[in-house]
Amino acid sequence: MYYGVLFVTILVMVYVMATYVRIKKMPEGTPEMVRLSGIIRDGSRTFLWRQFKVIAVLAVILTVFFTVFVETWSGLTFLLGAAMSSAVCILGMDNGTYANVRTTNRARTTLSLGEALKVALMGGSVPGLAVQACGTFGLVLILCIRDGIDPSGKGYGLVKLSSCNPGVMMITTFALGCSTVAMFNRVAGGNYTKASDVASDITAKIRHHLSEDDHRIPSVIADFIGDLVNDIAGNCSDLLESYVATIAASIAIAVSVFNKSETAARSLFDATVMFPVLLAGCGLLSCLIGIASVVFRRKLSDSASKELDMATYVSTALTMFGSLVISYFVFSKEEVYDSFRFGWASPFISAMIGISIGVAIGKITEYYTSDDSAPTQKVAKSAPEGAAFLVTRGDALGERSVLIPGLCLALAIMASFKVCGFYGVAIAALGMLSFVGTTVSIDAFGPISDNAGGLAEACVDIEDPDKVRDITDELDGVGNTTAAIGKGFAIGSAALATVSWITSYVSGYSAGEPILNIASAVVLAGAIVGVSLIEYFSALLTDNTIDSATKMADEVEEMLPDIFSGKVDPDYNKCVKSATDYALKKMVVPSVIALFVPVIGAFLFGLEFVGGILIGATLAAIPKAIYMGNSGGAFDNAKKYIEKGRLEGHGKGSPAHEAAVTGDTIGDTRKDVVGVALDIFIKMMSTVANIMMPLLRNIALFK
Amino acid sequence: MYYGVLFVTILVMVYVMATYVRIKKMPEGTPEMVRLSGIIRDGSRTFLWRQFKVIAVLAVILTVFFTVFVETWSGLTFLLGAAMSSAVCILGMDNGTYANVRTTNRARTTLSLGEALKVALMGGSVPGLAVQACGTFGLVLILCIRDGIDPSGKGYGLVKLSSCNPGVMMITTFALGCSTVAMFNRVAGGNYTKASDVASDITAKIRHHLSEDDHRIPSVIADFIGDLVNDIAGNCSDLLESYVATIAASIAIAVSVFNKSETAARSLFDATVMFPVLLAGCGLLSCLIGIASVVFRRKLSDSASKELDMATYVSTALTMFGSLVISYFVFSKEEVYDSFRFGWASPFISAMIGISIGVAIGKITEYYTSDDSAPTQKVAKSAPEGAAFLVTRGDALGERSVLIPGLCLALAIMASFKVCGFYGVAIAALGMLSFVGTTVSIDAFGPISDNAGGLAEACVDIEDPDKVRDITDELDGVGNTTAAIGKGFAIGSAALATVSWITSYVSGYSAGEPILNIASAVVLAGAIVGVSLIEYFSALLTDNTIDSATKMADEVEEMLPDIFSGKVDPDYNKCVKSATDYALKKMVVPSVIALFVPVIGAFLFGLEFVGGILIGATLAAIPKAIYMGNSGGAFDNAKKYIEKGRLEGHGKGSPAHEAAVTGDTIGDTRKDVVGVALDIFIKMMSTVANIMMPLLRNIALFK
Repeated sequence: MYYGVLFVTILVMVYVMATYVRIKKMPEGTPEMVRLSGIIRDGSRTFLWRQFKVIAVLAVILTVFFTVFVETWSGLTFLLGAAMSSAVCILGMDNGTYANVRTTNRARTTLSLGEALKVALMGGSVPGLAVQACGTFGLVLILCIRDGIDPSGKGYGLVKLSSCNPGVMMITTFALGCSTVAMFNRVAGGNYTKASDVASDITAKIRHHLSEDDHRIPSVIADFIGDLVNDIAGNCSDLLESYVATIAASIAIAVSVFNKSETAARSLFDATVMFPVLLAGCGLLSCLIGIASVVFRRKLSDSASKELDMATYVSTALTMFGSLVISYFVFSKEEVYDSFRFGWASPFISAMIGISIGVAIGKITEYYTSDDSAPTQKVAKSAPEGAAFLVTRGDALGERSVLIPGLCLALAIMASFKVCGFYGVAIAALGMLSFVGTTVSIDAFGPISDNAGGLAEACVDIEDPDKVRDITDELDGVGNTTAAIGKGFAIGSAALATVSWITSYVSGYSAGEPILNIASAVVLAGAIVGVSLIEYFSALLTDNTIDSATKMADEVEEMLPDIFSGKVDPDYNKCVKSATDYALKKMVVPSVIALFVPVIGAFLFGLEFVGGILIGATLAAIPKAIYMGNSGGAFDNAKKYIEKGRLEGHGKGSPAHEAAVTGDTIGDTRKDVVGVALDIFIKMMSTVANIMMPLLRNIALFK
Repeated sequence: MYYGVLFVTILVMVYVMATYVRIKKMPEGTPEMVRLSGIIRDGSRTFLWRQFKVIAVLAVILTVFFTVFVETWSGLTFLLGAAMSSAVCILGMDNGTYANVRTTNRARTTLSLGEALKVALMGGSVPGLAVQACGTFGLVLILCIRDGIDPSGKGYGLVKLSSCNPGVMMITTFALGCSTVAMFNRVAGGNYTKASDVASDITAKIRHHLSEDDHRIPSVIADFIGDLVNDIAGNCSDLLESYVATIAASIAIAVSVFNKSETAARSLFDATVMFPVLLAGCGLLSCLIGIASVVFRRKLSDSASKELDMATYVSTALTMFGSLVISYFVFSKEEVYDSFRFGWASPFISAMIGISIGVAIGKITEYYTSDDSAPTQKVAKSAPEGAAFLVTRGDALGERSVLIPGLCLALAIMASFKVCGFYGVAIAALGMLSFVGTTVSIDAFGPISDNAGGLAEACVDIEDPDKVRDITDELDGVGNTTAAIGKGFAIGSAALATVSWITSYVSGYSAGEPILNIASAVVLAGAIVGVSLIEYFSALLTDNTIDSATKMADEVEEMLPDIFSGKVDPDYNKCVKSATDYALKKMVVPSVIALFVPVIGAFLFGLEFVGGILIGATLAAIPKAIYMGNSGGAFDNAKKYIEKGRLEGHGKGSPAHEAAVTGDTIGDTRKDVVGVALDIFIKMMSTVANIMMPLLRNIALFK
């Protein structure tokens, strides 16, 4: 069966490469378009090159460490994970810098929305499908080589300090490899993105009263690239990490459930390992069909949202149907665990619970952040009373928006647990991500359209820029709405996957049922530490962004006199370089926290203390991520609401608009730096805890 | 022994009343001073009357409910708690409106800092000592009447639905009575305070470009009273609630520890109940001596901070020494529990751990929020780049400031548990609050000095206003610094007391060791709900404040034309009335959440689910309260830093100052409404859970 899934992944990879090449071959447009997109591509490669050099060094060190101390092959699987994630990012970024200008050009030459949509969606589908294909590929490769997982297997590192289950460990380190790259893209990438953005703002607006897109400011191109870094590299590696971690957690839970059970048959165990992988493969195939059903149709309708919805519906429906078939096929002949309340259908029902909750969270996110609904409009309407009111309103909105997603998650955990035990919780998470290929394709569609619009505005030699701009604007707007659902899946699955990792961690060291007693001093103390760490981590990321932005603005300031006097041309690449280097330097502390806190915690106060840290961090990170994302989103859209002239008497340039801009700038760091990094942080900590647990058993200093 | 403590409380009450009368008899000053302070006193009584009418109705309903369904006498003890807390608030507020103008007058007539300090500190000591005396009095009264606690006692309500320990239940409902009043003062009082403040700001500064103290604006007096409501009524009932809850939790834990132990002697149980009460009594006596050592000295030095420190040191040292003596006296003859690692000295050591951690948290709070140290200066220095930068920096400061207090709390829990089991955790909390009398006296000293300064400025018939103002300014400044330590005690004790309540709750329904397994779906789901509730609660409070402020500003707006044209005098009382009523209306939802969530949660998914809610809410509330308090404090002081002219090139009225004012307004709601209400919210929920637990056992709908 695994070979079947392997075949699907290779099929999709072929599609991805073919599409990449096809896009590259399309005509690029006017000379100015060629020149500008060239500058962006150069800058983007500069960023990637610098970042992945550092990632490579770190990856090699960790590979050696895992090989020597944890498990012989788990170093290599870690490297494989990092490589897969890097490949997706590099491909996605590079593809983005081709697809953006070609979307503009297609709009320019055909003046047809359908045609431009086709190019942009093809562009989005390259990283989108690559995410799911590469993630599945790595996991299935491991399973094929090892011929599945042996639940009682024992493996050692080159230095035999402690034993672990080699199959589970390989999959876990594979997931950590993906997390590591995602952490870089979210923390360093996020820092880079927002620093460039804010630096351009400060320099242009506050210090020199210029337009924020003024091309003489050297940080402008860095800002342009930032969008791609955040929305393509960041998003892809983030969701790849979530996707892989979710499948890996399901498998880890399958192992621990089997090992705690005394009566289960080995064939049932194999079924529980196989189900998530088959579900992933089925989802991947469904996404390919869903995307193809749009991009290969000869003539598209003129409603972009209809076409994108079409791709989503086809993928989702096929995946849902497929998961029913797979659940039947895999479990109907087995005598399932007692915890499977609905027999063979239980995993299917869990997956459905996950999908519904994901959609619900997404819809709520949309309700709270869209400028078409009351909450964001309330924020916008407070703008005339000044920035303080607006920010306070936005803060309250962010806090308020946590409640229903929180209740949804609680319900999802209880319901999927009822249906199928902790295995059900893991499968619910996977359910949300099983058609991640389409979700990411539509996500990546956004920045490509956005960039395409920017190019349409910037290139002076386009004949009918307004018409082109209309098309790209519409594409961009539609992308934003559809992306909200994706966010719901990302948050929901992150929460459930972390829960699965924590359960797997606790199961690993406790003898009977997994117990983590929070009414004990050590676990509770750990939880308080975990909660505090999330705050500290957020503070670090925020402060780093402001530091980087200030530094960049000051550097730009130095260059400006010569540029304004015409002595030199703006050196865009220098800006990209220094911002990247600074962002990478600022990565050190956050990464050290994620990697070392579980280790130091266990060393000081034992594994239960670390269990407390993980649970505390998770409980703090879920609401904080929602708060940051939604308050940031609402500020952004409140500003747009005013800019569209929908707040009577307070248009662009009014004091109310200025207040909204203040809110938007505050929100930028929240939603694009902190909010998106938190779930990777908790997943990384819990993966590290799982990996290091065998090594750290029984060496608590104060116990 | 209990009678000895009762005697001390009565002694202190006599001092309090005598001081109150003595202050009242002092001369009030110039005619303008008499007039203005009269207006303030009237308004303050209007506020109190309206608020306590509503409290009385609610209290009677709950009294009947508890008497009928929970335990025959526990309704009355609830009423006693509410009455004690109300008495403290009313006395404190009334006293504040006398002491403020008399401080101004003493400064005016003697032009001596020492003399003015004496009046202000005497004024502060009335509510300060009343807090500790009334709290202790109620508890000791219950213990005296019942002749201590019977660990195996069984009591019923008038309708015999379920049994409970009557002694513990009476003490718990007494604590809930105090919490209820505190909740009103913090939620409705906080709303009232900040709504008045912000409404005056909007009307004066944003809409009419007047000075914020312009007496023609009718909300100005409401704003004046708000300071007293927040800093005297709010603070006193808050700390009374903390203090009583902490002692009650120690006793509840003592009962559960004894009942779980099979070998402990009954005399040991009595000792564990007696210790916290004696410690409280000893602390109260120490505070009386500490305060008296300053206010009864004939001539004070001219350094206000030295005198306040003197009062604190005397109280603290006497309490510490006393707790050693009491610990020896109570426990040395007992064969203590195994969990008492250091024999009879264990409770003493736990108390010391509490005090040290409290001081540490207070010092850190001071470090993060004082304009003399780097973090707040960093916020101030970002002001020239605009409000967005400043707010983002302040947010990061708030988040960052959580880490060390969090680590301190984790350490305190582990260490005090190591020393003395969960009893030790409860005693550590009590340690921090054992000299609360002095802490609150110094806290209440602040608003009195602040008000005194305001009167010095407002009353045009004072001969040498600048000299008077210098004195009151110095007093006010010193009050702020010393109050920081008090905040540390408040936060630390709230966290530890809630932990004790939760342990007592879990012990109540579980057979052996208290276990709350957070690696189970139902507890984890509960925790996620708890975390989300804290966010929702914060959002409610924030939105309500803005709503009230907007409403008040609009009402004021309507009156203004007639006032400006000289047709009518501003109707200060009308403003106070409508703001109070609106604030009380806005209390409904938050109170319903605190009172009903534990009940509904248990009814739906059982007691473990509620345990999860409590732990989740606690884990979320601790960092959020610190974040809100410290970011708000830093914004406030960053503004002052700029106003003092310490930010070179950016004085009062500059764009940087405007950015700082925006930050300050955002911070106001955070620190004075949300931050201070959170710990009451979690303590109230956990007390309710403890009270309702016997009723809700075994009736989970979905289990």
